[in-house]
Parts: sequence; structure tokens; C-alpha cells
Amino acid sequence: MHSSPSCSPGCSSSCSISLPLSPLSSNGRGSESVSAEEKREVRNRNTASDPSGMASVLSFYLSYLLLLSLSVCVLVCVSVWSSDWRGGFAWDGSALQFNWHPVLMVSGLLLLYGNGAVLYRVPLTWGQNKLPWKLLHAGLMLLALIFSIVGLCAVFDFHNKNKTPNLYSLHSWIGIAATALFALQWVFGAGVFLLPCAPPRLRGLLKPLHVWMGGGILGLSVAACISGINEKLFFVLKAGPSYSDLPSEAVLGNSLGVLIVAFGLVVMRILSNQNWQRPDSRPEDLVYTPLLQEENE
Amino acid sequence: MHSSPSCSPGCSSSCSISLPLSPLSSNGRGSESVSAEEKREVRNRNTASDPSGMASVLSFYLSYLLLLSLSVCVLVCVSVWSSDWRGGFAWDGSALQFNWHPVLMVSGLLLLYGNGAVLYRVPLTWGQNKLPWKLLHAGLMLLALIFSIVGLCAVFDFHNKNKTPNLYSLHSWIGIAATALFALQWVFGAGVFLLPCAPPRLRGLLKPLHVWMGGGILGLSVAACISGINEKLFFVLKAGPSYSDLPSEAVLGNSLGVLIVAFGLVVMRILSNQNWQRPDSRPEDLVYTPLLQEENE
Repeated sequence: MHSSPSCSPGCSSSCSISLPLSPLSSNGRGSESVSAEEKREVRNRNTASDPSGMASVLSFYLSYLLLLSLSVCVLVCVSVWSSDWRGGFAWDGSALQFNWHPVLMVSGLLLLYGNGAVLYRVPLTWGQNKLPWKLLHAGLMLLALIFSIVGLCAVFDFHNKNKTPNLYSLHSWIGIAATALFALQWVFGAGVFLLPCAPPRLRGLLKPLHVWMGGGILGLSVAACISGINEKLFFVLKAGPSYSDLPSEAVLGNSLGVLIVAFGLVVMRILSNQNWQRPDSRPEDLVYTPLLQEENE
Repeated sequence: MHSSPSCSPGCSSSCSISLPLSPLSSNGRGSESVSAEEKREVRNRNTASDPSGMASVLSFYLSYLLLLSLSVCVLVCVSVWSSDWRGGFAWDGSALQFNWHPVLMVSGLLLLYGNGAVLYRVPLTWGQNKLPWKLLHAGLMLLALIFSIVGLCAVFDFHNKNKTPNLYSLHSWIGIAATALFALQWVFGAGVFLLPCAPPRLRGLLKPLHVWMGGGILGLSVAACISGINEKLFFVLKAGPSYSDLPSEAVLGNSLGVLIVAFGLVVMRILSNQNWQRPDSRPEDLVYTPLLQEENE
């Protein structure tokens, strides 16, 4: 979070600080005076021409590989737990219907959400038109939201058919807040950043809020997952070996929780490293780059 | 996170971009060529001479006031829950001993920790020598660590005296991981950033890791609190009104959880807003400002 967008502590002599920031920022006229070459120069930082940039790209892809590996591990863990240990899936009001809940919430509100959040950080996408990546970001987030809503329907319907009250536990309060904020964030994000109606200045002002809220929703999602797994293991591990005996299912569930926390930490690390921000989304560019114009290049 | 350290989108015309970044960064010589006046200029951004800086300072103090208010609310909630609803405190192996656990963990690993983390962001401290604030930061964090360790002792001793196994639930795994990482972070932080043995370049390189890990520990702490409150309410609200009936104690516990999440979000907002970073800790300064020299001014 503290490393410079254009200059990490380790690259003071090689990074370009020659961008004409002062004139651009001081006239406040936006990007009219910024040539396509200058934008290309901004985009091409951290690429082959710059050894420290290459190191930054390499360390990004290592982190990204870790993120994808954690995503697969989390998905396998939650699926194996629900299918092999909890009996599989159905939509009949039985406990098998409940099993959709953890799988869909973890897949949607955590994995798709986290992977969608870091999409702009992939350097491979930087030299390209931003619009397709915006559409993919919005599409992934919409899919994540749909998974989350179906995951909530699974547990609400299961509760209703079994005369169990809804939304009483802290887990449910945190989970419903995360999903509601996510839905708001998607509508707000699409309206401001995707549709061509919001002025660039408004986008620049609202983007920090969008990014902060995005990180906050991920935090809520992780907290909801941890409390949900903890609660479920106390519910199901009563007869036979209890949770406190730490049987295999408890180790599997706890490991799932640890993997989820690791996934959240890696997403936050990728989001907070400014060297890994898409160049035209970096602070110094936000001031003078209208995103609408960006999309038309 | 996306707003510029020196220029928010809303201040393009008034912010100073005239800092001699290029010569300083391109010669890579560190701060030898930076005059005290220039450093003072960096520090004095966001102060009375700059209207948009004043707005930034004002919005910081509003957020800080919110943080302090949430701190008081969380402390009152967890104390009232333990004292009035759970019977008060003792150190005798009874359930009253357990009551120290939530109060000490929430006070230490969450409230003192979060308030200690944002200390450098208080603009009042920016024009002053950094060393006393470093000592206060380290002191608050040490106090937070001591509270957390005593809070863990309370529950371990309670479990041992009642023949209850330790460290089986996911809540306990996350909580112990948070405390262990916090202890490591404190030792590592004191060794690198407080004692005068680490070279400035190493400090600059390790600071982003320190900040990221600090945010991660806060996230773990929030997840541990939420899962712990959820678990406790399921444990204690069985006979009489159950948790699912949402009696007053359940509403109090759930509200405590919501307040804790709000506290975590406000801390992350303060930490992620680069306009609120202590000027000599900002990215462009990290490259050329040896922290050791800083302390001697």
C-alpha cells in the first residue's frame, strides 16, 4: 500500500518520473492534452523494457497463481465436504438442499467475487481496450451475485420447509449484509462505471469508495464463511465423534476455513499493491483520464 | 486506495505537484539532497494553507470520531454482555473466568490494535518528530498483545480446569493464528522499524509487508470475533429462549458483531486512504527518506 505507483523502493533509478504531471494536474482540463503515446508510455511501465517492472510482473503472476491454486483448493474442499461428508445435493427441503448453501456462497460470494475483483490487475490486460475487461469484471460479479442469491434461496427454503426461523444468528446477519451490499455495489458500479452516463469526474471521485466497499464486502464474506463453517461443525458433530474430538470432518472444515482466510489475504495483497494496478487506473492517471474516452481507443 | 497521495480527484488544481520528484528519484541517492524545508513542505500538505487539504483533514477527523465512537460502543457492548448477562468476572476456573476472554480479546486484538494501527494517520502528529509516535504505536500494540495473551490464558485455563479440549474449533484456529501473527508482527516491527539497526532501504522494502500483514491480522481478528460471538450465543442460548427466538441477549451479541464489523471497515478505510497517510510515509517519500534521519529532526 505504501509503494509508489510508479516507483517501488527498489526501482528509484530506473522508473520513469518524467510524466508531465504538473501541467496536466494544474490545468485541471482532463485528458485533452494527453497524447495516445503518453498513455501508451504509462501502460508500458512494468513491462519487458524495465527489469524492475519485469520483477513486479513476475511477482504478480506468482501471487495470481497462488490465488488460482487457493481457489481450486477451496472449491474442492467445500464440494467434497458437502457431497461426500454431508450426503450430496437435492432441492427437496431436506438437509441435502442445505448443502447447496455453503457450495454456492463460497463459489459466488468468495471465489468468483475475489477473482473478479483482481481482474484489472492482470498485466496481460493492460495494453488492451478496457471495455471488454470491464464487461468481464461486471459479468463475473453478476455471476457471483446470482450464485450468492441462489445460495441464500437454498437455505431460506430449507428453513421454511423445516419451520426453522431465518436470520437470527450473527452468521446470517453478516452473510445477508454482505450479499445486500454486494447487490448495491453491483448496481452502483454498473450505473457509474459501465454505462456511459456518468461523467469521468464523478467516476474518479467514486472509484475509491467502490474499491474500499469491494474490499469490505470481501471481508464480510470471509467472516460469514468462517462463522458459518464453525456453526455447521458444531451442529453436525454432536453424536458420534464430537467437534472437540477433532474427527476428520472437523479437520476438513477447519482446513477449509484456513484456506478461505488465505484466499482473502492474497486477494487483499493483490488489490493493495499499487505496482499491480492497471496503469490507467492509478492515482496520477485518475485525475486526467476520462474512462469513457479510454474505452474508445 | 486509488486516490493520489498528493492529489485527490477533487483537488487537481490546488494540489502541489511541484515536488522535485524526478531529480530525487533518478539519482537514487536517498535524502542527502532533500532539504529540511522540502520535507516541511511535504508535511504541510493537507493543512490550513490548502482548502482541499483542509477538507481532507476534516473528513479524516470525522472518520476518526466515528472510529472512537465505535470503539466505545464495542467496549460497552462486550463488557455489558459479560458482566450483566453472563454474570461478571472471576479467575477461578468457572464460567466467570471465561468472561474475561471476549472482553480482553475484543479490547486487545481489535480495539487497541485498530486504534494503534491508525495512529500515524492523525494529522496532528505530522509536523512532529516521528520517534515519540513510533514509541506510542509500539506501546499500544504491545498493550494490545498483552491483553490478547491474557485473554487466551483465561480461556485455556478455563478449558483445562473443566477438562475441555483446547484449539479444536475453527474459531480457535483463526484466533490463535491472529494472535501468533500479531506477536510475530510486533517483534518484526520493533526490530526493523523501531530499533536503530535496520538500514532505511530495508525499512522501505519491508514497510508494505508490515502494513499488509497488519491489515490481514485485523481481518483475522474480526473473523475470530464474529465466529466466537456466534458460537457463544449458540452455546448459552439453548434452555429458556433459544438463539433462534432472538431474545435480548442474542440481539445484544449480534449487535456487538455488527459494531465490530463496522469498526473493522472504518479502520480499513482510514488505512487505505492515501491522503491520510503521514506525509513522510507516503510512497514518493519512502524512496528517499531514511526513517532514522527522520527521527533525529
